[in-house]
Amino acid sequence: MHILVVGAAGMLGRKLTRELVRNATLGGRRIEKLSLVDVVAPDRPGFAGETDLRAIDLSASGAATELVAGRPDVIFHLAAIVSGEAEADFEKGYRINLDGTRALLEAIRAEGAKNPYCPRVVFTSSIAVFGTPFPEVIGDDHVLTPLTSYGVQKAIGELLLADYSRRGFLDGVGVRLPTIVIRPGKPNKAASGFFSGILREPLAGQEAVLPVADTVRHWFASPRAAVGFLIHAATLDTAPLGIRRSLNMPGIAATVAEEIAALQRVAGEDAVALIRREPDPVIEKFVDGWPRAFNPERALALGFTADSSFDDIIRVYIEDEMGGERPRA
Amino acid sequence: MHILVVGAAGMLGRKLTRELVRNATLGGRRIEKLSLVDVVAPDRPGFAGETDLRAIDLSASGAATELVAGRPDVIFHLAAIVSGEAEADFEKGYRINLDGTRALLEAIRAEGAKNPYCPRVVFTSSIAVFGTPFPEVIGDDHVLTPLTSYGVQKAIGELLLADYSRRGFLDGVGVRLPTIVIRPGKPNKAASGFFSGILREPLAGQEAVLPVADTVRHWFASPRAAVGFLIHAATLDTAPLGIRRSLNMPGIAATVAEEIAALQRVAGEDAVALIRREPDPVIEKFVDGWPRAFNPERALALGFTADSSFDDIIRVYIEDEMGGERPRA
Repeated sequence: MHILVVGAAGMLGRKLTRELVRNATLGGRRIEKLSLVDVVAPDRPGFAGETDLRAIDLSASGAATELVAGRPDVIFHLAAIVSGEAEADFEKGYRINLDGTRALLEAIRAEGAKNPYCPRVVFTSSIAVFGTPFPEVIGDDHVLTPLTSYGVQKAIGELLLADYSRRGFLDGVGVRLPTIVIRPGKPNKAASGFFSGILREPLAGQEAVLPVADTVRHWFASPRAAVGFLIHAATLDTAPLGIRRSLNMPGIAATVAEEIAALQRVAGEDAVALIRREPDPVIEKFVDGWPRAFNPERALALGFTADSSFDDIIRVYIEDEMGGERPRA
Repeated sequence: MHILVVGAAGMLGRKLTRELVRNATLGGRRIEKLSLVDVVAPDRPGFAGETDLRAIDLSASGAATELVAGRPDVIFHLAAIVSGEAEADFEKGYRINLDGTRALLEAIRAEGAKNPYCPRVVFTSSIAVFGTPFPEVIGDDHVLTPLTSYGVQKAIGELLLADYSRRGFLDGVGVRLPTIVIRPGKPNKAASGFFSGILREPLAGQEAVLPVADTVRHWFASPRAAVGFLIHAATLDTAPLGIRRSLNMPGIAATVAEEIAALQRVAGEDAVALIRREPDPVIEKFVDGWPRAFNPERALALGFTADSSFDDIIRVYIEDEMGGERPRA
């Protein structure tokens, strides 16, 4: 089978690629070809099969058509401008997150008009499609009222994915990712970056800034769990989804205080002491509009699985990013 | 003040224009200029002020910019491809209902980037943004899961309207219209057309086809009530709307049997006898996905008002379209 990953150079794209290469199969079928695409050329994975690496802006004229011409069986569409940047740069956010997504779906439809074609499309959406006021625990039928341009763009992507699926142009699954912690590497422009930073930096013996109160509660998954969601979304039977193609993913609800307590258990008091409290009204305002917990019944019934605890989320990071070496406690 | 009506040649656009001309004011301000636009040139209204009539396709390059250059204070955006046609012609539906709407919002944003500008934009959305399964009565927080391309396009329009309003580019109000009965004139391509047809044709002494069961229950407003919604949306204080810019409008919930009973009361048994039952599986499938009743608390609290009964809906038609002459009962 042929798999296309759009956004392959991003954090999740790289981890997904590594997992696909490691498995060498998807849903029981051997992976013959991997097409990896991003605005910068993705790294060449150690993959035995055919590999196609491209630096392409999905929203550029003809780009999506070029990508779909190879008729991939499964398309992971992970490419996105993150929340903070989509808020700061209105035009760029709409160009990449809306026009780019639509161009991809349209290219698939055009390819299918030439010759029957209906690829599985896994689209990374976000819990940012939801907006206040929130119940303490959000159900699967919660109304979409995004509070950011990013959330609006993701909600529109979900609507398009559902319509193109209903029409039979593609077979889409939208995955509303929890906030991913611990993100490896440097902070990105996501307003949620501190949720990772207050763990990642102390684990590396560095100071981290906490811009919100300890009582802030939010919804998390590890990168490893997120890759698991994507792979499951690529292989599950979509018949039970009906018209509702986008799903709240399972996760771990935790307060900042609970994050810090987990850090203390795994890495000791010295790590915790590296967290510096410096309230930031802009980030606090963002976070006020974020969901705290979900009851993702549909996703659980469909076999999606989350991390088992916040301690596990930290352990995943230590295993996957720090060579399994636990810092001195 | 300067008012722009996009979609002014349509049924609702003509009635709205007539009402604006009759009132000569909107929200207490004198109307100095009316710009009326549609894909075909709207009829010249008997308006004492400046009138600008244009035949323009909103989705054509530069069209929206041209319309907004006159910096109207209030923009009614009624232009749309109806549900049946948007379902039959996928590309046309997206071009007019999505690209056209987005072009209008973008033109407003671009105008505001030159010089501060934040017009009131009244957008006609639809209860087609909702999809099954439905509760018996739909609340204001019901999830958006449209079952048609038209519904998806309207839901996307709502999301864009909310984001552009939040950003301060415009001051938007989305009006989720009930199904309008009795539509005057010839049937249009809307799948809901029969709800009007089974009243309008018998009132004119002609046969009408009823393609669904008598037990089908749906949500209605008269054209006069709909014009009232639009005018109220153009003048209300939008501060209480917050991020949720689109509202379920009040209406009358009625079964087909109740429609027919009202027809019988107003026009007699001879009229009812002109309804021929001829089930149409395609329309039945459409209608199965439609809401039955709403509890439009927010709109009622904001002062929107509906017709008082289905009999009234028929009387409005007789007054406004048949010169007040009640057919022989």
